[in-house]
Amino acid sequence: MEQIKVVQAWRVKDGCREEITDPVIAEAPLTIYFNERELVTLLCTPEHLDELAVGFLHSEGLLAAREDFRSVRVDVENGLVWVEGKEKVLAGQTFLKRYITTGCGKGTSFYSFHDTTSQPVKGNVKVSPETLLELMRRVQQGSELFARTGGVHSAALCSTDDIVLFRDDIGRHNAADKIIGRCFLDGLSVEDKIFLTSGRISSEILLKTAKAGISVLVSRSAPTALAIEIAEQVGVTVVGFARGSRLNIYTNPLRVTEQEVAGS
Amino acid sequence: MEQIKVVQAWRVKDGCREEITDPVIAEAPLTIYFNERELVTLLCTPEHLDELAVGFLHSEGLLAAREDFRSVRVDVENGLVWVEGKEKVLAGQTFLKRYITTGCGKGTSFYSFHDTTSQPVKGNVKVSPETLLELMRRVQQGSELFARTGGVHSAALCSTDDIVLFRDDIGRHNAADKIIGRCFLDGLSVEDKIFLTSGRISSEILLKTAKAGISVLVSRSAPTALAIEIAEQVGVTVVGFARGSRLNIYTNPLRVTEQEVAGS
Repeated sequence: MEQIKVVQAWRVKDGCREEITDPVIAEAPLTIYFNERELVTLLCTPEHLDELAVGFLHSEGLLAAREDFRSVRVDVENGLVWVEGKEKVLAGQTFLKRYITTGCGKGTSFYSFHDTTSQPVKGNVKVSPETLLELMRRVQQGSELFARTGGVHSAALCSTDDIVLFRDDIGRHNAADKIIGRCFLDGLSVEDKIFLTSGRISSEILLKTAKAGISVLVSRSAPTALAIEIAEQVGVTVVGFARGSRLNIYTNPLRVTEQEVAGS
Repeated sequence: MEQIKVVQAWRVKDGCREEITDPVIAEAPLTIYFNERELVTLLCTPEHLDELAVGFLHSEGLLAAREDFRSVRVDVENGLVWVEGKEKVLAGQTFLKRYITTGCGKGTSFYSFHDTTSQPVKGNVKVSPETLLELMRRVQQGSELFARTGGVHSAALCSTDDIVLFRDDIGRHNAADKIIGRCFLDGLSVEDKIFLTSGRISSEILLKTAKAGISVLVSRSAPTALAIEIAEQVGVTVVGFARGSRLNIYTNPLRVTEQEVAGS
């Protein structure tokens, strides 16, 4: 399925109207079946659908570990994907429901199933601000879909040297789930990796990446107060507004090292 | 509940690190109960929660008309809202499920419940490109939350003269639902109105606004191919990339008039 569709449009610029052809980003529904049960329909950029489905299920706590997974089958044409897990793992009433836990120490209302299974992250990357800004530049330049259509968010899993996995999607949550799904399917370690996103850092992105075990989350945009609060509890380093020559570190700042000194 | 929380952060700029206090946008879960049944938890900017809940239910087809609505009650502190509708209207298995209709003429896979109830829009606004660009400037300048935190999307319902309703939220869908909810609660006519959003025009935003009866949808960002396709079917004018002195018209271009001539 094509990721870009060329449409007819009319451009008005400084009062002049002209007919143009314009590339716009594809958007398609993907319905996920888990253990033969219809679970949810996402709207996405229709590629890497196996990753998206598996990443989504992992983020939602329905595929907790690799051994819970059996198979994934995609019908690209009709936007359907079937994931099979261990029979005992069922998409039950917990899905999309809110859980308010008591006694969590800080009075936070945890709001969904996967929150309650979040553990402090184990990764302990050390990375300089210059490296983060250089990686963000590459992520921004790396999306051909964005350059052509302006209609996608990008996400990247990076080492402290380079981009390891890059995905874009009309939804920033989907881009994250595609990366998480690829790591899950390939058994790729993320504890030594950094996650970069073009979108804001909401609690959902924070929880998705923390649950996957990622300890450094970087955005060129803003974080929310709830994302910062959860990041403090699960030990994630949140970096926002990483653009040009500046960035803000919101939590766990020691993973972002001081300026590299020449010759060190 | 405060919309902004001031946090401690570290700003790194051109290699220098300094400790700052930074205002970040609040994010809170809102759990919607419809006819005493827990339906869904949204993450939002915690204001105008009655509008958000009612607008969401209307967009999802669960509160089709004003006479289906009985009451709304909000617990701001705990992020809970209870909406009562006519007893016969139940949040059944249709919610969040995908519907693939056959025989819809163009081979489109309709993907959710509200699609199947979408009717062609009735509104027939005429507006000049200059007016749309001026309204978009006001929307961009109108968000104090964006100016302070960079963390919200804005949406506005406008006449051809000015902004009538303005809402911002961490989620662009929520901002739209808040406006739709206010119109629903007040019985405000939208057929002569224009809807502006800072976010992309996805199929979801298109369907929400079309279902509400809005005929002109304007964004400073990109539309998706699916949004354009549905806009053609339901008769909505889609305008994208409305920034500075330019914009692109994607569908039903006659509602956007030619340049206004001095003295006309």
